[in-house]
Amino acid sequence: MRNVFNERRSPLYNVLRYSLGWSEIDGSPRKDTAGKSIRPMLCLFACEANRTSARTVLPAALGLEFIHHFSLIHDDIQDRDEIRHHRPTLWSVWGNPKALVAGNALRTIADSCLWQLVDEGVDSHKALFVSRLLTNAYLDMIEGQYMDIEFEGRSNISISDYIKMISKKTGTLIKCSMHVGALVSEANSETVRAFKNCGRSLGLAFQIKDDELGIWGHEKATGKPTGSDIRRKKNSLPLVYTRLQATGKNRNILEKTYAKETLDAADVNHVLEVMDSVKAKTFSENLMAEYCEKGLQSLADIEVSDKARTEIEELVHFLLVRRY
Amino acid sequence: MRNVFNERRSPLYNVLRYSLGWSEIDGSPRKDTAGKSIRPMLCLFACEANRTSARTVLPAALGLEFIHHFSLIHDDIQDRDEIRHHRPTLWSVWGNPKALVAGNALRTIADSCLWQLVDEGVDSHKALFVSRLLTNAYLDMIEGQYMDIEFEGRSNISISDYIKMISKKTGTLIKCSMHVGALVSEANSETVRAFKNCGRSLGLAFQIKDDELGIWGHEKATGKPTGSDIRRKKNSLPLVYTRLQATGKNRNILEKTYAKETLDAADVNHVLEVMDSVKAKTFSENLMAEYCEKGLQSLADIEVSDKARTEIEELVHFLLVRRY
Repeated sequence: MRNVFNERRSPLYNVLRYSLGWSEIDGSPRKDTAGKSIRPMLCLFACEANRTSARTVLPAALGLEFIHHFSLIHDDIQDRDEIRHHRPTLWSVWGNPKALVAGNALRTIADSCLWQLVDEGVDSHKALFVSRLLTNAYLDMIEGQYMDIEFEGRSNISISDYIKMISKKTGTLIKCSMHVGALVSEANSETVRAFKNCGRSLGLAFQIKDDELGIWGHEKATGKPTGSDIRRKKNSLPLVYTRLQATGKNRNILEKTYAKETLDAADVNHVLEVMDSVKAKTFSENLMAEYCEKGLQSLADIEVSDKARTEIEELVHFLLVRRY
Repeated sequence: MRNVFNERRSPLYNVLRYSLGWSEIDGSPRKDTAGKSIRPMLCLFACEANRTSARTVLPAALGLEFIHHFSLIHDDIQDRDEIRHHRPTLWSVWGNPKALVAGNALRTIADSCLWQLVDEGVDSHKALFVSRLLTNAYLDMIEGQYMDIEFEGRSNISISDYIKMISKKTGTLIKCSMHVGALVSEANSETVRAFKNCGRSLGLAFQIKDDELGIWGHEKATGKPTGSDIRRKKNSLPLVYTRLQATGKNRNILEKTYAKETLDAADVNHVLEVMDSVKAKTFSENLMAEYCEKGLQSLADIEVSDKARTEIEELVHFLLVRRY
């Protein structure tokens, strides 16, 4: 993976190496890796579970990871976030223009990864189809991001609006990871559909967990203080749900708090209390568990090895209990 | 062209319709078209000049135009430009986050245009190759943008640094337009190479003219006041050349002026005077004419119809004399 920029000579690639967690700001190498690599993991799994070497789909898995990182770089610019994964964000180190351009470069490099599919033995026709699937997934992701921006400041978002938004913003790329992995493998069309459906549910579960961590996550693990998404007034699931449930005094607290320009620690605590009183965390966790179960169910009737079955169960378990 | 978003349902596409000059801010239709469409024009020309219906390459021509517009949307965010083509820029109307995301959507739609190549009868293998050429061109363009940002504040840029930067930032996409147009046609490999070389030279000529208009263009035509690129401290060709040529008092004026945080009308006039005294405009015009000549020369030995020959000569003439 780290060899992908080797032939490119612009200082731009040092910025990207930092962004991907391969180097420090000054360019020196870094041993830790950043991120959970959930998309490539699911993609490689869906290929290998269908009796095909994971290597075949590796170029697409790499492309998916790069697209995800591209979206993080631009998200941080939009949200003015200065820290991600405990490290300063690109724009906060190199400024907006360079960060914007570096994101665009990574977006383009993701496309160029796909060329290798043909070298791995995938035929041109299928490679074009994969490229088409990914392009559609990117566009869905972008439409979801736009919807997310439009939700800002709105207090009347339904659970179904929210699910629609995250299924585009986060879900499509995760669904696509499993879809492409199975598609490139020896799997028949029924199996491909099953993996795609599994990916759709896991994508939703993943974002719901992310939303939960944005409220109740621990700073040491997530790099963000507890309640950080409250302070940022993000319309994440716990808030969407709490707004729908809160009545009387609780409703007043929410309205008054979110009418403020900026929220302080006391405001965050008040909102956390309201969330507790309507059991928003339990609602989140139940919904997430439901999608995880639905995801596993999609693969129930599909013939895969015991090893693959165990792997996906472990992966889903990780999604459920992860703390970062 | 205007039907391309018809199946998409997000308000995001209203922003893009405005950006492409198809509608007003409120969504009402607009009759004027924005921009010169130089890239699709060259692409369609290169195809038709080689005895192939322009329709065949239309999807790629459309993709090239969308990529160009995507780069304008992001450029305006970076440069904080509030007006383009006499109209408010996207970020100044919808804010940074939406403008950023809208640009990314257009970038992705450009890719999806290419799928139509196969429908127009281009075989999968060639279509994949075109997609590869375009992806490489985008990456070159982005590297050029990065180089341009790195040039900011530097006073020691050589003409050859500058040519290298613009050949990436602007040149590659224009070169690619002619390359792809010829490639998709019936042309043999020697002819394809000739069109590609022609595009390379015209791309440089185009940017040099743009730089000239950024200094000496008229507000009525360009939408920007005379000297606007001086005020923005842009390292465009006239400044790069003037810095290399100016000595004594002139050099002091430049150094003092560009050391200021912001430049006022008097500063702009002083720089214009220094540019006049080293004949920066003549240098620019000569260099541009040289590249135009070189571009036409690339096609001199190629067999094309008289009609095509006249067309490209007229197009080059337009590039030389255009005022916007």
